[in-house]
Amino acid sequence: MNLSNPSTPLLTRLGISVPVIQAPMAGTSTPALAAAVSNAGGLGSLGMGATTVEGARAMILETRALTSKPFNVNLFVHAPATADAQREARWLAYLAPEFARFGAEPPTALREIYKSAADDDAMLAMLVEERPAVVSFHFGLPEPHIVKGLHDAGIVLLASATSLDEAMQIERAGIDAIVAQGIEAGGHRGVFDPRQPDEGLGTLALVRVLVRHTHLPVIAAGGIMDGAGIAAVLALGAQAAQLGTAFVASPESAADAAYRANIANPAARTTLITSISGRPARGIDNRLAELGRAPERPPFPDYPIAYDAGKALHAAAKAQGNHDYAPHWAGQAVRLSRAMPAAELVATLMREVAQAVS
Amino acid sequence: MNLSNPSTPLLTRLGISVPVIQAPMAGTSTPALAAAVSNAGGLGSLGMGATTVEGARAMILETRALTSKPFNVNLFVHAPATADAQREARWLAYLAPEFARFGAEPPTALREIYKSAADDDAMLAMLVEERPAVVSFHFGLPEPHIVKGLHDAGIVLLASATSLDEAMQIERAGIDAIVAQGIEAGGHRGVFDPRQPDEGLGTLALVRVLVRHTHLPVIAAGGIMDGAGIAAVLALGAQAAQLGTAFVASPESAADAAYRANIANPAARTTLITSISGRPARGIDNRLAELGRAPERPPFPDYPIAYDAGKALHAAAKAQGNHDYAPHWAGQAVRLSRAMPAAELVATLMREVAQAVS
Repeated sequence: MNLSNPSTPLLTRLGISVPVIQAPMAGTSTPALAAAVSNAGGLGSLGMGATTVEGARAMILETRALTSKPFNVNLFVHAPATADAQREARWLAYLAPEFARFGAEPPTALREIYKSAADDDAMLAMLVEERPAVVSFHFGLPEPHIVKGLHDAGIVLLASATSLDEAMQIERAGIDAIVAQGIEAGGHRGVFDPRQPDEGLGTLALVRVLVRHTHLPVIAAGGIMDGAGIAAVLALGAQAAQLGTAFVASPESAADAAYRANIANPAARTTLITSISGRPARGIDNRLAELGRAPERPPFPDYPIAYDAGKALHAAAKAQGNHDYAPHWAGQAVRLSRAMPAAELVATLMREVAQAVS
Repeated sequence: MNLSNPSTPLLTRLGISVPVIQAPMAGTSTPALAAAVSNAGGLGSLGMGATTVEGARAMILETRALTSKPFNVNLFVHAPATADAQREARWLAYLAPEFARFGAEPPTALREIYKSAADDDAMLAMLVEERPAVVSFHFGLPEPHIVKGLHDAGIVLLASATSLDEAMQIERAGIDAIVAQGIEAGGHRGVFDPRQPDEGLGTLALVRVLVRHTHLPVIAAGGIMDGAGIAAVLALGAQAAQLGTAFVASPESAADAAYRANIANPAARTTLITSISGRPARGIDNRLAELGRAPERPPFPDYPIAYDAGKALHAAAKAQGNHDYAPHWAGQAVRLSRAMPAAELVATLMREVAQAVS
């Protein structure tokens, strides 16, 4: 590949000119962010994991009003949660003193706040109607009829892998490309089964192994914040780079002031993985993360049941002006964050790619 | 940098022509391996962490007989172990049933099997006499007079960092270059203080952060197995790549048949980090690692006291033809291992670097 002029079969397939995919980041991405990235030649993404079918449709329409370029709609396809009243009660009892700090009561019960799209025919029908150019899957793979339905509508499909085994499952499912998510990545790890041991493959090792041992195009994710990082993963044989944390500080993201301040704060830039949502996710260390890593904590409820409690606690704290319980997801290279409009960031990244290999 | 013809200030300083450093790998590296890499234009290394001063001198002389090129002598500079008879007795009691499987008794007491070179004036005197071109440090930094003594002898100094904080300590100590060791790396992590939390930075994130936030040349280590990996870290701004696992399968290494077979065995290629030696190290999963990660295990004795027990257990098992207790250190990309003579591997790597960026 000519790294100074990276045009890859995948980019042609996706209908984009620049090997940059903005990570979906449910709750932080916006139609404005996705459209800005797509208009700049990359692939903007909408994170629908926490959204209803009609909410997802509205975001697609809003994005389409801002760009005629391709963009990506990301779905969570986790195995449905198993409710466990006893485990959930223990978890709420564990968090109760934290709620009390803010004069609040924990919820009396926890709900499965997100529906998995793995078998969601209403979501499928909406997507077939709206036909976004690209749909991506996180936390596993959907039922075969979802893959077939989206493919029949001409939609290109991506899925996240954190291991060679997951990548081979993606290949067998007929997905078009793999998002190789290394341990550096911020937010939720795409592991298919969080109960299985996780080797925690770094982006460099994972991308190279998947390029060598699968037949699908690979998109690298995790720790990539600038053009040098993009050039590096292209050298590994990735056909594009997916960046999340790099776009959090863009004015088009939905990040609140506290999240932006934390991303920009050198003292806050240690990240770690906890399962405070019920699934492993990397964020900036804070009181929420501390609750998730305390040795004496009870077992986590299933994802996303545990997240219902975490979100309630964050809301109680935020109402009192305390932001130390926010899920401020960020990757390991957050220190390299730059606050600039998304289009300017994409242009800067591509200048830097050229410099990195000149 | 021109990636097709990577000549960097660091290479000039080290007196080498190829941006490849063979990782020291105490117990696995040999004078023949180091000399072969140096003769091929890279920097061969000798791992002296488990060696006496006179043993180290003999290895230097043996290497010098095989090459007139520069090579590197690696020292372990860990904080001295604190013996704790009670902790050690609990550890031996925990391992006793494993010894019994092989009709063996655990040792009655454990010893600090390696002396730290952090304040070793005899090692300093020998190195000043023998003047290897390069000396590198692992597990921390030596006392200032050791740095000064080696520098006064004209020796170039390297030290491993796994975080920005460690890298800044290395910079302040007057060391000449940083080995940025990512979480992918096989063998012992160079963390200065294993009791502190470890962010576990991936190679991609760590290298880029150190290139941007320190003033020293950076050598990338962890997960690099081929020319694409080298091209990737050069794109990140590293001035050279350090490869360990890639050289284990070379005929010049000291790896025994069981180690070579494990490196080549697809079924054995899951790696994980345990502190079975008393310090975190990444190796191929086996019964030894399982003992290190069992939730019910007692606390590890200090490094390298715990390692004395692990080595005794491995010896008892190996005497009965069982290799499942061997510390088969390997990095996360071990799946990309190729068995070829070291000189051929270096030449292959450089051809691949050129291909990766063409």
